[in-house]
Amino acid sequence: VRKVILASASPRRSELLKLVIPEFEVVPSDFDEDSMRPGETPEQHVLQAALEKAREVARKRRCALVIGADTVVVVDVDVLGKPRDEDDARRMLHMLSGRGHFVYTGLAVVTRDDEECCATGCERTEVRFRPLPHDLIDRYIATGEPMDKAGAYAIQGRGCVLVESIEGCYFNVVGLPLYRLSRLLEEFGVEVLVPG
Amino acid sequence: VRKVILASASPRRSELLKLVIPEFEVVPSDFDEDSMRPGETPEQHVLQAALEKAREVARKRRCALVIGADTVVVVDVDVLGKPRDEDDARRMLHMLSGRGHFVYTGLAVVTRDDEECCATGCERTEVRFRPLPHDLIDRYIATGEPMDKAGAYAIQGRGCVLVESIEGCYFNVVGLPLYRLSRLLEEFGVEVLVPG
Repeated sequence: VRKVILASASPRRSELLKLVIPEFEVVPSDFDEDSMRPGETPEQHVLQAALEKAREVARKRRCALVIGADTVVVVDVDVLGKPRDEDDARRMLHMLSGRGHFVYTGLAVVTRDDEECCATGCERTEVRFRPLPHDLIDRYIATGEPMDKAGAYAIQGRGCVLVESIEGCYFNVVGLPLYRLSRLLEEFGVEVLVPG
Repeated sequence: VRKVILASASPRRSELLKLVIPEFEVVPSDFDEDSMRPGETPEQHVLQAALEKAREVARKRRCALVIGADTVVVVDVDVLGKPRDEDDARRMLHMLSGRGHFVYTGLAVVTRDDEECCATGCERTEVRFRPLPHDLIDRYIATGEPMDKAGAYAIQGRGCVLVESIEGCYFNVVGLPLYRLSRLLEEFGVEVLVPG
């Protein structure tokens, strides 16, 4: 059985992965996230970034099964990253108010001995927000929660009340689509839900 | 400001409510859950049960704002409660395998001084399961997680890998639809996301 490594520094991804497999190691990748290139679709961008993150760690840790993930929030043609400051968070939340947007996560599972072997997948979830009055946005920003989150919200946190409904995988919106990841792991012979 | 009371013994509902309001008390209702009556729809059933739970506590705690909730899992015309034993859990998981089902939660907010004042709402979420091989069902049952859950799974737990996608409110599937609840609380002048 190959050792599993999560190539992400996100404590949220680590918490989620614990639901699926009992043991793994966390080795954040040094891969620098770029912004999207002209002509690149969100799917292409997150798949490439997930693959680069996983590859970077797989080169250093031979024979391990390395998981990379990359998530973006897309509203119309705008890609929202983490807000720079509270004004930027306010701008993003106004953009998301009373409408739908998409969250994309690219996943890559890479293992390398003599050759590299990889499997990738991309998950897309639509998230519909309630109309957000100014005072609700102000109170949400005051919680501090938006500041380190792509799109300036956390569905799994106090941002839950902003979200009317979703369509797709919930865990994708948190940052790690667990159903799709479990199917990728199965391709490499890793069984999910085994006792830990 | 009225005191808020959650009329539910569920630790999951309590955890979720903490995301929305900073302070509340838990007073489980003594209301006995019945099964559905002939001709009753799932909406009618969960609304009535949520209302009875909240009323029962509101009668004892005048002027408090009491939240009641009731959740059922519906696959075709069958309503799934908590499994009686592992065989019953296995039967339910086979029923849910490779298809969609619906989760309904009824919500009621009740306050009583000289008169009773109440607001209710029902949330429905579709949950689509992956095809579940026998060995996956066996491993999931071995985790012990299905035994105290309606429909024999917990989307927020290790059951996450069984769920391909959902359509609607995620927190409804966990047992307390937070967006809808926050709107009901707003009707009573309770602001969400205030500092605790």
